Amino acid sequence: MKIGIVGYGNLGKGVECAIRQNPDMELYGIFTRRAPESLKTLTGANVYSLDDILSHKGKVDVLIICSGSATDLPEQTPYLAKHFNVVDSFDTHAKIPEHFARVDEASREAGTVAMISVGWDPGMFSLNRLYLEVILPEGKTYTFWGKGVSQGHSDAIRRIEGVLDARQYTIPVPEAMQSVRSGENPDLTVRQKHTRECFVVAKEGADKAKIEQQIKTMPNYFADYDTTVHFISLEELKRDHSGIPHGGSVIRCGQTGLNGENKHVVEYSIKLDSNPEFTSSVLVSYARAAVKMSAEGICGCKTVFDVAPKYLTDKTLFEINKELL
Amino acid sequence: MKIGIVGYGNLGKGVECAIRQNPDMELYGIFTRRAPESLKTLTGANVYSLDDILSHKGKVDVLIICSGSATDLPEQTPYLAKHFNVVDSFDTHAKIPEHFARVDEASREAGTVAMISVGWDPGMFSLNRLYLEVILPEGKTYTFWGKGVSQGHSDAIRRIEGVLDARQYTIPVPEAMQSVRSGENPDLTVRQKHTRECFVVAKEGADKAKIEQQIKTMPNYFADYDTTVHFISLEELKRDHSGIPHGGSVIRCGQTGLNGENKHVVEYSIKLDSNPEFTSSVLVSYARAAVKMSAEGICGCKTVFDVAPKYLTDKTLFEINKELL
Repeated sequence: MKIGIVGYGNLGKGVECAIRQNPDMELYGIFTRRAPESLKTLTGANVYSLDDILSHKGKVDVLIICSGSATDLPEQTPYLAKHFNVVDSFDTHAKIPEHFARVDEASREAGTVAMISVGWDPGMFSLNRLYLEVILPEGKTYTFWGKGVSQGHSDAIRRIEGVLDARQYTIPVPEAMQSVRSGENPDLTVRQKHTRECFVVAKEGADKAKIEQQIKTMPNYFADYDTTVHFISLEELKRDHSGIPHGGSVIRCGQTGLNGENKHVVEYSIKLDSNPEFTSSVLVSYARAAVKMSAEGICGCKTVFDVAPKYLTDKTLFEINKELL
Repeated sequence: MKIGIVGYGNLGKGVECAIRQNPDMELYGIFTRRAPESLKTLTGANVYSLDDILSHKGKVDVLIICSGSATDLPEQTPYLAKHFNVVDSFDTHAKIPEHFARVDEASREAGTVAMISVGWDPGMFSLNRLYLEVILPEGKTYTFWGKGVSQGHSDAIRRIEGVLDARQYTIPVPEAMQSVRSGENPDLTVRQKHTRECFVVAKEGADKAKIEQQIKTMPNYFADYDTTVHFISLEELKRDHSGIPHGGSVIRCGQTGLNGENKHVVEYSIKLDSNPEFTSSVLVSYARAAVKMSAEGICGCKTVFDVAPKYLTDKTLFEINKELL
């Protein structure tokens, strides 16, 4: 199957690499808003102008849209779903129903499959929240994120006056995870679940005490958390904090039996060297599903909840029932 | 939806309890080969003779068949699928393709949905093996079982001369799990992955040294493992080993990037107080899916790979996209 990539940031590069791991796939090309000839790709892929994308209609089986959730995806996904099967990683949880409605209308009219909110959260974590809730209806689900870099929180620090650069790590509180894993079903406040650790490069002469105070009291981002701030040099930031690791866990403890006398703890956890590359790998699997479902005449907006696992693999049903069941 | 239970052992009792946790479900009754009036159920459910089950056709939405994989399910599932939507937990991995073929023929002809091999392995572990293999195609998947009671191995010990009763625990080797979790992708022999611990009650005057020797050298069951044998009293066995706990993990370590430079470790793990009750809870969720899929006109033999997650819940797609995605 021929796959097109829209947008060439970390996610787009991850998709470019992931396609090479799947022998049934071929990278058709990368569509960019930049001047195509200015783009140096990792694998020497074809690069096209996003403005001309409609001229490629019929030549691409599915587009993976690797743009940002804030302003790009709400425009691009419904627009492109009118002409192509598409997959995106829209991750603004609160706006998913609205995004779904717009994409669903476009894709139903065009007869395409449009998968939204694919990745690990939303995505694989969502799947586990659903599977666990239905299997253990009496229980409680917890999601922990980290240890990992939060791009949004890092950006928020960079906007403070006197800050040259910054990196923020979200860290789950070990005692909270331990309590959940032991089946205690604790009530946890925001502060009890995660801490935040910031590595900040201050501009020369900047008031560090003031910067630290501004970070720790920032509403929504930091005020509700125990936050640690370290001032380091630009060299140290580049040397020690240039990776984009992430991770997290979905944990559910539930009870069964005539009187709930038996406890069960289920945990899905991930530890990633590269957050965008793992997300890209999930996107590529669901791109395969989009093509296979489209070939069966299915259309409309889909999420991970709509996709039977068999559509994700290039193996036959007979093979997976024999080898993996 | 109205659910019938076929067979009333530990699994059937677990299903009876699990149905009460799901407000959209109702227990229609239990079908048994024993004399119905001899059966004392946990919840006072209706009990019917299995011989008369066809007279209940049209009154039950789905049957959960809670019989054994060795001899009962290969007969019962294809037979009952000719008349009802059914779910079973057939777990003889090597014979799944054969079981699938027979059940598929029966259910297609009858227009019913027949879900086979539902539980945690096969079942939830199979799902995770598939999801992880497609997301991280370059990598290695490991399945560990335990710590938990293996019924088959306990039975094998009980067949030895001089043994009154026995309980066998399968235990994953901590160092092996640690190596896998750290992303080393080790090659592990059978012996390196699991150990076996046996608690044996010997008959009076029995030759304990001989029993221990017979256990440790038993082909297929114990010879390939490091096995520990403890002789205990019947009282100790009843006091300390009457539960049916189990657990395990599916772990995959894979790499991504242009040259596989980034590692990712994903782990799905379960810790169960009651192995049969957790399996029952999975069966009940897939019974809901069978009814919902049947209502959409779908028919034939299905495994967990065929079931889109949305079919498992009684919530609407809008609700799960809003609440769980």
